[in-house]
Amino acid sequence: MEKIVNLCKQYGFIFQGSEIYDGLANTWDYGPVGVELKNNVKKLWWKRFVQESMNSYGVDAAIFMNPRVWEASGHVGSFTDPLVDCKECKTRHRADNLISGFTDKINPDTLTDEEMIKYIRDNKIPCPKCGKSNYTDIREFNLMFETNRGVVKDSSSLVYLRPETAQGEFVNFLNVYRTARAKIPFGIGQIGKSFRNEITPGNFTFRTIEFEQMEHQLFCKEGTDSEFYKQYKEKAMNFLYDLGIKKENLRFKDHDKLAHYAKEACDIEYLFPFGFGELWGTHNRTNYDLSRHQEYSKKSMEYLDPETNEKYIPYVVESSVGCDRLTLAILCDAYECQTLESGDTREIMHFHPALAPYKACVLPLVKKIHSEKALEVYNMLCKNFMVTYDESGNIGKRYRRQDVIGTPYCITIDDDTLNNNTVTIRDRDTMEQVTLKIDELVNYISNNIKF
Amino acid sequence: MEKIVNLCKQYGFIFQGSEIYDGLANTWDYGPVGVELKNNVKKLWWKRFVQESMNSYGVDAAIFMNPRVWEASGHVGSFTDPLVDCKECKTRHRADNLISGFTDKINPDTLTDEEMIKYIRDNKIPCPKCGKSNYTDIREFNLMFETNRGVVKDSSSLVYLRPETAQGEFVNFLNVYRTARAKIPFGIGQIGKSFRNEITPGNFTFRTIEFEQMEHQLFCKEGTDSEFYKQYKEKAMNFLYDLGIKKENLRFKDHDKLAHYAKEACDIEYLFPFGFGELWGTHNRTNYDLSRHQEYSKKSMEYLDPETNEKYIPYVVESSVGCDRLTLAILCDAYECQTLESGDTREIMHFHPALAPYKACVLPLVKKIHSEKALEVYNMLCKNFMVTYDESGNIGKRYRRQDVIGTPYCITIDDDTLNNNTVTIRDRDTMEQVTLKIDELVNYISNNIKF
Repeated sequence: MEKIVNLCKQYGFIFQGSEIYDGLANTWDYGPVGVELKNNVKKLWWKRFVQESMNSYGVDAAIFMNPRVWEASGHVGSFTDPLVDCKECKTRHRADNLISGFTDKINPDTLTDEEMIKYIRDNKIPCPKCGKSNYTDIREFNLMFETNRGVVKDSSSLVYLRPETAQGEFVNFLNVYRTARAKIPFGIGQIGKSFRNEITPGNFTFRTIEFEQMEHQLFCKEGTDSEFYKQYKEKAMNFLYDLGIKKENLRFKDHDKLAHYAKEACDIEYLFPFGFGELWGTHNRTNYDLSRHQEYSKKSMEYLDPETNEKYIPYVVESSVGCDRLTLAILCDAYECQTLESGDTREIMHFHPALAPYKACVLPLVKKIHSEKALEVYNMLCKNFMVTYDESGNIGKRYRRQDVIGTPYCITIDDDTLNNNTVTIRDRDTMEQVTLKIDELVNYISNNIKF
Repeated sequence: MEKIVNLCKQYGFIFQGSEIYDGLANTWDYGPVGVELKNNVKKLWWKRFVQESMNSYGVDAAIFMNPRVWEASGHVGSFTDPLVDCKECKTRHRADNLISGFTDKINPDTLTDEEMIKYIRDNKIPCPKCGKSNYTDIREFNLMFETNRGVVKDSSSLVYLRPETAQGEFVNFLNVYRTARAKIPFGIGQIGKSFRNEITPGNFTFRTIEFEQMEHQLFCKEGTDSEFYKQYKEKAMNFLYDLGIKKENLRFKDHDKLAHYAKEACDIEYLFPFGFGELWGTHNRTNYDLSRHQEYSKKSMEYLDPETNEKYIPYVVESSVGCDRLTLAILCDAYECQTLESGDTREIMHFHPALAPYKACVLPLVKKIHSEKALEVYNMLCKNFMVTYDESGNIGKRYRRQDVIGTPYCITIDDDTLNNNTVTIRDRDTMEQVTLKIDELVNYISNNIKF
C-alpha cells in the first residue's frame, strides 16, 4: 500500500490534503492525473447507470438537507459508532475494530454493545496505544457532521452534512416520477459528496471523512424486487470487469447481518493490498425508505400503475459505490512493476484506455527539430481528448513517465512526420508500434478508448 | 424570474431542496434535465480551461482543509458581512443591502462600517420588515460554516467548510509544479463545492449557501500579469459567447473598490431577470496568495526559472465563475416563448447543442407499429450520448415537450423507417426536417453537438 501511496504522490494522482500545513488527517487532494482518472470513473459510471439505462434519471441534490430527512432515514437516531475510552491512556477506539483486530473468529457486527464490551473484557483485548486493557463502557457516537445556518446558533439552525447521497434520490422520487413522466421500474442515479465523522478512517483513500458516492436507486414493484436485486448485483460486477479490474481480485460477500429494513444485501469486495475491503453494495431496501418519508413528510409516496390502476409504495434496489474507493481499487489493480533485462524497473498503470488520465502523449523526437510539428499535432488532439506533451529527456525516459501515469498511446514526431505526415504510435501494454497518417490519429484513438 | 423558477420545477431542471419537507431555505436540487445541463456546463468549462490549455492542470482538493489555510487566506479574520439588528422588530439585515436597496447613488462597498451606519441613520433607511429605522451598530459576521471533527468538541477539532475552491489550487501549487514538471506560465483549474453562511441569499440559484465553483489560477511572472489578466478577461467572455449567451446580456464591470491585494479586478455581469448580476470574476491577485501561504506554512513558494535561474513567488491571475449561476444565466438566456398562429404558446430552450440535456429524442410515430424499431434506434444512440424516448401523445405535443427542455433533435420513426431505414430529424430552432439513413445518425448528431 505504501508503494501505491508514494507513487500517487510522486506522479500527481493523490496528495495529502493541505499538505503544506502538514495535512489534515484523512483528507486527500486529487492531483493533475488523479482528477482525470476520478472524473473518468464518474463519467463511465454515469454512462452505464444513467445514460445507457433507458428508465434511469440523474439528480444532483444539495448536501444540506432539511434535518427531518435524517430523522426519517434513521440517521439521527442510529447512525453511530460504538466507542470506548481507554481509562489508562485516554485514547478512544471503536469497540468493533478492537474485536476485529484481535480475532477473525467473531464478526462484531453481529454483537450488541453489551456483548462487545463483554468480549473485549473477557479476552483482555489490549489498547492499541498503551497495551493495557481497561476500558469504559461503550458509548454510541453519531457520525454526522453538524453545522449551523444563519447567525444565531440554536437548535432550529442545526443542519447536517449528508452522510449519504441516497436520501437525495428518495426525497426527489415524486419530482422525478412527475417531471420525467417515469413508469416503474425506473431508476434515479446521483454522484456527490458525503461526509462522515469517522474517528478511525484510514488506509489511504479507502475510508475518509469526506468522499464521493455514486448511487443508483431502482424503484420497482414488490415481487419484482428480488429479480432486480440479482440483476443489479451482476450489473455492478460486470461494470467492474469491463473497467478491466481483474476477476480474481473481486468477490461477492453477502451481509452477515441485515439491516432491519433490508431484505437482501451484499457487497462486492476488492482485494486491496491490506486485504479484501468493501467496494460496492447492492441492497434490497424494500419499501422502507419511501414509507418512512411518507410518514415523516405526510406526502403520499404512492405510485399509480397506469395499467392496473393499482397504488403502492415502490420497493427500492440500491446500488452504491464509493468513487474514491473505486478509484483506489483501479489504481491498485492497474499497477505493475516490471524488471527489465537492463536491471531497470518499468512501472506501468494498465488503466482501461477510457479511464486513462491522458489518452496520448505527443513527443517530438528532437526538441529543436520536431517540436513545432509536435505542437500542431498536440493542438489538434487536445480538441478531442485529454492529451499531454513532453519534449524533455530521451525518448525511453519519456515513455516511462507516460507508462507510470497510464497513458495508453505515445505519439512520436520525427523526420518522417516532417516529410510525409506519418507518426509512430507506441502502445503502452504491448509496446508495439504502428505508423499512421496524422489525419488518421483522432479516429484511431477514439476507436481505442471506447467504453 | 418566477416564470423560470416554475418552468425549472415543472420540467425537471431544478427543484426546491428537501421539497417534501417544505424545503430548506436556499438549497436547490437539480432534476433529471438540470443535472445534465449543469454537467455539460462543467464539461465544457473543463474542456476550454484545462483540456485545451496546454499548460493547465486540474486538481480536486478536499472541502475540509487545515484551518491554518483560512488564516493565511484572510478568511478567518475578514470574510464577514456587516450586520445590523432592527431594535424594533429584532430582524437582522446586511447594512450594505439596506443602502443599495435604498439608493443607486452610493456604492456601499466603498464605505467603512462607520460610514455605512451613519448613512443608514442620516437617511432613516427603513427596516424592510417593520418600516421603522432604529438599528444597532454594525457587527461583522463571518460567513464560513464551522463544524467539528472527531468526538471531542474543542478548538483543536474545529474545521471550516471551504468558502471558495481557490485555496485548493494555491496550497497545491508546489505539488503541481513538481509532479507535472510545469513551467511558468501554467494554470491550475478546479471544479468543486463551496459553502457560505449567507443570511440574505436569494434570487433562485443566483446566491445560495452551497454552490459549485469553477476556478482557474494562472501562475505567472510579475510583469506579465497584466497581459494575462486582459487575456483571461477576454477568454471568459469568449467562452460565454461560444456557449451561445447573447452578447447584449453580457457586460464587463470593473470593480469600484479593489481588495487590498488585488491589482486589477473585473466582473462579467449577466442581465438576469432581476437586473445585472455578477457572473464571472477575473482578478490580478499579484503574489499575495502564495506569499501568505509561504509566511503561514513556512514552505518556500518560490519558482525557479530554468532559463534565467531567477527565483520568485509567482503572480496569480484568477478566473472564477459559479457553475450554478452560469447554469441559471444559460437557462434565462435560452428561454423563448412563442405565440403560434393557433394562439397556443410554444416554449423553447435554445441551448447550444453541446449544453442540451438530451441531444435527441426518439419518437415512434405510432406506438404499436413503430416502437420496436424506435427502441433499436434509441439503444444505438444512447451508447454515444444522452438521448430520450417518448411514445405517448400526438407528435406535435411530443415536439413541444422536447422544445421546452431544449432537445436539439427529434427523430421520428415511421413507415419509411421500417421500409428503407430512413428517419426524419427535426431541428428544434429552425423546425426544418431532414431525412437520413439510420446509420448516418450518430455522425450527424456528433457533428452538430461539437463545442
